Amino acid sequence: MAKPPVLTPRAQDFPRWYQDVVAKAELAETGPVRGTQVIRPWAWAIWERMQAEVDRRIKGAGAENVYFPLFIPEGHFRREAEHVEGFSPELAVVTHGGGKELDEPVVVRPTSETVFGEYMAKWIQSYRDLPLLLNQWCNVVRWELRPRLFLRSTEFLWQEGHTAHASAADAHAYAVRILQDVYEDFMTEVLALPVLTGRKTAAERFPGAVNTLTCEAMMGDGKALQMGTSHELGQNFARAFAMSYLDDTGAEQLAWTTSWGVSTRMVGGLIMAHGDDAGLRLPPALAPVQAVVVLVRDEEGSGARAARIVAELADRGGRVRLDDRVDTSFGRRSVDWELKGVPLRIEVG
Amino acid sequence: MAKPPVLTPRAQDFPRWYQDVVAKAELAETGPVRGTQVIRPWAWAIWERMQAEVDRRIKGAGAENVYFPLFIPEGHFRREAEHVEGFSPELAVVTHGGGKELDEPVVVRPTSETVFGEYMAKWIQSYRDLPLLLNQWCNVVRWELRPRLFLRSTEFLWQEGHTAHASAADAHAYAVRILQDVYEDFMTEVLALPVLTGRKTAAERFPGAVNTLTCEAMMGDGKALQMGTSHELGQNFARAFAMSYLDDTGAEQLAWTTSWGVSTRMVGGLIMAHGDDAGLRLPPALAPVQAVVVLVRDEEGSGARAARIVAELADRGGRVRLDDRVDTSFGRRSVDWELKGVPLRIEVG
Repeated sequence: MAKPPVLTPRAQDFPRWYQDVVAKAELAETGPVRGTQVIRPWAWAIWERMQAEVDRRIKGAGAENVYFPLFIPEGHFRREAEHVEGFSPELAVVTHGGGKELDEPVVVRPTSETVFGEYMAKWIQSYRDLPLLLNQWCNVVRWELRPRLFLRSTEFLWQEGHTAHASAADAHAYAVRILQDVYEDFMTEVLALPVLTGRKTAAERFPGAVNTLTCEAMMGDGKALQMGTSHELGQNFARAFAMSYLDDTGAEQLAWTTSWGVSTRMVGGLIMAHGDDAGLRLPPALAPVQAVVVLVRDEEGSGARAARIVAELADRGGRVRLDDRVDTSFGRRSVDWELKGVPLRIEVG
Repeated sequence: MAKPPVLTPRAQDFPRWYQDVVAKAELAETGPVRGTQVIRPWAWAIWERMQAEVDRRIKGAGAENVYFPLFIPEGHFRREAEHVEGFSPELAVVTHGGGKELDEPVVVRPTSETVFGEYMAKWIQSYRDLPLLLNQWCNVVRWELRPRLFLRSTEFLWQEGHTAHASAADAHAYAVRILQDVYEDFMTEVLALPVLTGRKTAAERFPGAVNTLTCEAMMGDGKALQMGTSHELGQNFARAFAMSYLDDTGAEQLAWTTSWGVSTRMVGGLIMAHGDDAGLRLPPALAPVQAVVVLVRDEEGSGARAARIVAELADRGGRVRLDDRVDTSFGRRSVDWELKGVPLRIEVG
């Protein structure tokens, strides 16, 4: 009788296959609070590389990194009507701090337009201060009813860019630049995923946006996944937070803002787009280990040969690992590396 | 009449001088929720370099990065008696999520020993799984009564390492290794701060620890600042979370754990240790801009000369910036760069 497959076959039950990969490749587990997740070393190392690659492109687009607080006063959300309506059902609220009930409840950020708005309004005085291009890497919380690891978790990690511009045209151009030069370029060149870019319909737009641009990729089940979005916010947040500046004639003008983000959801997209019935498959640029040298049996100098291959590949800048666990069965070890999606496996001995 | 100094002199009022530097060098501002902070681009760029340097050393000590959730069930804290007592007065508590009151309140992590404990207990089965060396970079929240930017904020950023070992001796050796090879080496070589390492008294120990090792540095006011700590937790957390393993004789043993961290407080320490009455002073390894070329007047080819110097220094791998704001007074520009602590200023024209 054939052994049962390590993973539920994709064709049989795709969501189940996804869960199997996440668990058996030791990528993530559900956290102790419903909807949260524990990201394990292999998946974290992939995310670290994603971060580095996206960050490099964001800096290339002229934005600077900052850090805004996790906690936002509840009142901030009420300043922009559509925004509060869009996020209210998803908020996590802190009511007690330091052993006392708080005078004003505090929201754990679901996104930071409102607090960026408050401070950018202070920092922008004149047209010389524009464009103001900021980004942060942080965690955000949205209370999810149907959580799925990486794809839809109560807490997730992302970058959120927030920018202010002197005109609607500048804001539009920058939102498009992020979509193309940062997101599309990263997804094509690093994730090795062709993406479709386009506009969301009015009903699908980000709460408070006037235009939402999106990058979508096709998954192994034939469904599209939203991988990143870039929003034009018009003057909605600038108005709510009095973000005005003096133009070169000395007249007061309201700024135009954008916001944009990609998240740990991309790890889920990577799994669903590239994975197969043997497990994850990683593009070499992202793989924590690009080549594994598996020592089958340590006989007749094979151990030394394996070590030499590892050293040679490492010398050329590769991320290489030696698997010399000869007391574990070869089959078991092969399955391990296939589950983890290491691009190249070299067997010695 | 002499102009008033840009900063309160250190000798006159050191805490005031510190606040002045943080504000005028545009390092950080207080956030909208009491005790939180907004970290601006210059300080964030310094923190990014600190992170990269500490992270490289942590990986060198064999630990792998992971990510654990922001939210911890309140009950987790009650499992280790000293730990709950130590943190209770500082906790921020989420009571509402998704528009409903939660069945069990959720704590915003003040540190993650309890949740690491729960999962490490699952991942550790045999002596072959030890040592398990994990680290995460994240935000934590402790409700502070007397917040000070970078030094003592309600939310701060840090790395927290959590490890499990087969013996007290191994745990001790690893806690010392982190203290010396990671923290002391980083502080000496990168922060350019000689530190004193030693042990905390029993009363000052981390809640739940059996031994707390510390790195302390001397600040400009003659006071010592705790810059990082490395804790031996004995078997306290292993017992609370049933973190046991089978040793090589097949007998069940309780693991020994450590935890250790450095935080954005180091940015405050850097300011207070190196700063002077003109502002921040940055070690070249951390400076976002290592050399600024200030074009005094754009006359007789000085603009081209300045640009050439910038290009030459950048070619050699330096982080260089050209300041060609010739319509701003030279004095104002000099003060700007002195406040920001750029190590080298080259004036042309």
